[in-house]
Amino acid sequence: MNINSNFLKLQKSYLFTEIAARTKAYEVAHPHHQVIKMGIGDVSRPIVPAIIEALHKTTDEMGDIRTFRGYGAEEGCHFLRQAIADHDYAPLGITFGADEVFISDGAATDIGNLCDIFGSPNKVAILDPVYPEYVEVTVMAGRSGVFANGMWSDIVYLPTTAENNFCPDVPQEHVDIIYLCYPNNPTGTALTRAQLQRFVDYALEHEAVIIFDSAYEAYITSDEIPHSIYELRGAKECAIEIRSYSKTAGFTALRCSYTVVPKELMGRDNEGKKVSLNSLWLRRQCTKYNGTSYLIQRAAEASYSPAGKAQIRTNIDYYMENARNIRLTLQQMGFAVYGGEHAPYIWVKTPDNLSSWDMFDMLLNKYQIVSTPGVGFGPSGEGYIRFSAFNSQENTQLALSRLTL
Amino acid sequence: MNINSNFLKLQKSYLFTEIAARTKAYEVAHPHHQVIKMGIGDVSRPIVPAIIEALHKTTDEMGDIRTFRGYGAEEGCHFLRQAIADHDYAPLGITFGADEVFISDGAATDIGNLCDIFGSPNKVAILDPVYPEYVEVTVMAGRSGVFANGMWSDIVYLPTTAENNFCPDVPQEHVDIIYLCYPNNPTGTALTRAQLQRFVDYALEHEAVIIFDSAYEAYITSDEIPHSIYELRGAKECAIEIRSYSKTAGFTALRCSYTVVPKELMGRDNEGKKVSLNSLWLRRQCTKYNGTSYLIQRAAEASYSPAGKAQIRTNIDYYMENARNIRLTLQQMGFAVYGGEHAPYIWVKTPDNLSSWDMFDMLLNKYQIVSTPGVGFGPSGEGYIRFSAFNSQENTQLALSRLTL
Repeated sequence: MNINSNFLKLQKSYLFTEIAARTKAYEVAHPHHQVIKMGIGDVSRPIVPAIIEALHKTTDEMGDIRTFRGYGAEEGCHFLRQAIADHDYAPLGITFGADEVFISDGAATDIGNLCDIFGSPNKVAILDPVYPEYVEVTVMAGRSGVFANGMWSDIVYLPTTAENNFCPDVPQEHVDIIYLCYPNNPTGTALTRAQLQRFVDYALEHEAVIIFDSAYEAYITSDEIPHSIYELRGAKECAIEIRSYSKTAGFTALRCSYTVVPKELMGRDNEGKKVSLNSLWLRRQCTKYNGTSYLIQRAAEASYSPAGKAQIRTNIDYYMENARNIRLTLQQMGFAVYGGEHAPYIWVKTPDNLSSWDMFDMLLNKYQIVSTPGVGFGPSGEGYIRFSAFNSQENTQLALSRLTL
Repeated sequence: MNINSNFLKLQKSYLFTEIAARTKAYEVAHPHHQVIKMGIGDVSRPIVPAIIEALHKTTDEMGDIRTFRGYGAEEGCHFLRQAIADHDYAPLGITFGADEVFISDGAATDIGNLCDIFGSPNKVAILDPVYPEYVEVTVMAGRSGVFANGMWSDIVYLPTTAENNFCPDVPQEHVDIIYLCYPNNPTGTALTRAQLQRFVDYALEHEAVIIFDSAYEAYITSDEIPHSIYELRGAKECAIEIRSYSKTAGFTALRCSYTVVPKELMGRDNEGKKVSLNSLWLRRQCTKYNGTSYLIQRAAEASYSPAGKAQIRTNIDYYMENARNIRLTLQQMGFAVYGGEHAPYIWVKTPDNLSSWDMFDMLLNKYQIVSTPGVGFGPSGEGYIRFSAFNSQENTQLALSRLTL
């Protein structure tokens, strides 16, 4: 049988394995040094009590023949879809039916699987630097062209750097699919409503779809920054929004997320006729998925209870206190520092034109701090490193005190 | 943007919605009649105590900062991959490394997502009747051709009927992908080692891949029936095996399964070079998936403890007692009855050339029993109905006593 040869074009996934290898080599050579990991964006706070309680309760429910249940709806349980519409959208003045919200086990899953409902000839635009999955799924789907000089020939790159104040321009040519993530990973920066509206207007004009990853919306601290792309005029006609519970409720191990596909959103078939993406995604999920774990959906539901909301807010404030301290300390040290105000990532320009990897090595060898080299997120990330605010406050303070000693 | 126009070819998913509609219409018209559902293959026994205990323990672990954990491996946790190799394969004399076992949230997910790693021009063979997903994912991937007279022009159908003793012949032409499910859903029949070996030999000769769904292996009661396709000579070079915890440990709501992709298994790229499917699937999962819920993987692990195994065996015996009673009762009534010995499904020939739907209506109207019309699983299912053994023993006995009164 023939394999999908697009897979063979994929570049070796190098960033986090290389970070792990260099970190391990250092630890082996210096067994008595405490290395502090501020690289990978994984949470460290435990699951909050309101959610733990829901998990215990649902576990008991599944062990009792009177309350046990089997298969649920492939698109997700109504109670959670409705809770999302009620708690995440209604307060923003955005109205969605439960049938526009699809529950899944993770944003990575839906970012990948959404490729199924699009045709082959679509042109893709991505931010640069960017979370690597958007690029890789584009390669797997055969939409990337060839790789040369760190870039794919058929992908439109939207540089996001200090030179444009981390506000990328809309594509200068026609594209069909635009991947956006705001508040942004890896730069930690955000777009105002007016800045994001330009992308929505572009998408409407070009009949493009924006796949909008809003994983970090809970970290926003200013009213000027939109929590959802649907706050923007016309977005229901051009945008899919994906939101994970990983970085809000700390579900990186439990696995839950959702994807909103508005009923207004249309694509075109091979004959140019309009087709509802909501109906295509529903069909995709009902065929290739059997629903997210009921236990985990009850856990996600508990994140919307008054206690759950308050406990999660405490965790986010905890991480954002780290972000603030990292940002201010590095600024005081004279670094050019970006992000960290509406996102748990701090994006730092390397001094003296150091490369990202040289800066990574310097921080590891001199201060025993693990960062993430910006170039790992794309060519425009060269000359930057990323700090994550997800470590404990104790470790974060220890790392900062090493830098300022 | 262009949509995947293959989706528009899909036939309306009709079987279970139509069953639900006719059942509801009957219940509305006869509010005092107790309708007994023996249609859908969903379990009714609660999660066993050993697994409930593991869920509580892991929940507490996730609520405690000393034991909380974040992202796990995309391919699954080592403890579960190793437990599968040790408990599901080693006792059969089959050796797998943990890195040949991939954990997922469900068989439907992997059956669908495996399409990603195959190229477009592959020819597909399916059993007829068959679980509808195999056909639908083939259509979505553009490998089906056109639909006419209940069949797809580019799919090779392998009729599985009383005429061939439910032992389908291998394809008479070249195919690249063969979907098999044994013990079989919907017919409830099984293949012996010698019968299955013919498919393995065919696949080796044609460089085809067999996607083998062994969801019901725990229901096998005879030593002649293989529990795994890897019991057959040469199968590691031509088969992927998918196994769900849904019908063994009752995980239809909890969601867990695994897929074995042996390192010996190769496909060919566009230039005819051999490529490891294990490496392609690993890359696919590491990109488009972020791992199965840790909580659920601990639950699946508990199914291999001595207590877990014994408790699950009790549930399977419970369902198989239903299967036995359904089978014997219908036989005594003079029906031609198949399956139900190594699977929780009983496949019944309708009398007097009744159509599947006419038999469905007769059972519903006369006996208040919901079955599944065989034609819903494919053209060769016409003239059969399926009973599921997953209802309670009380309801099953009640249904049978109505038939024999």
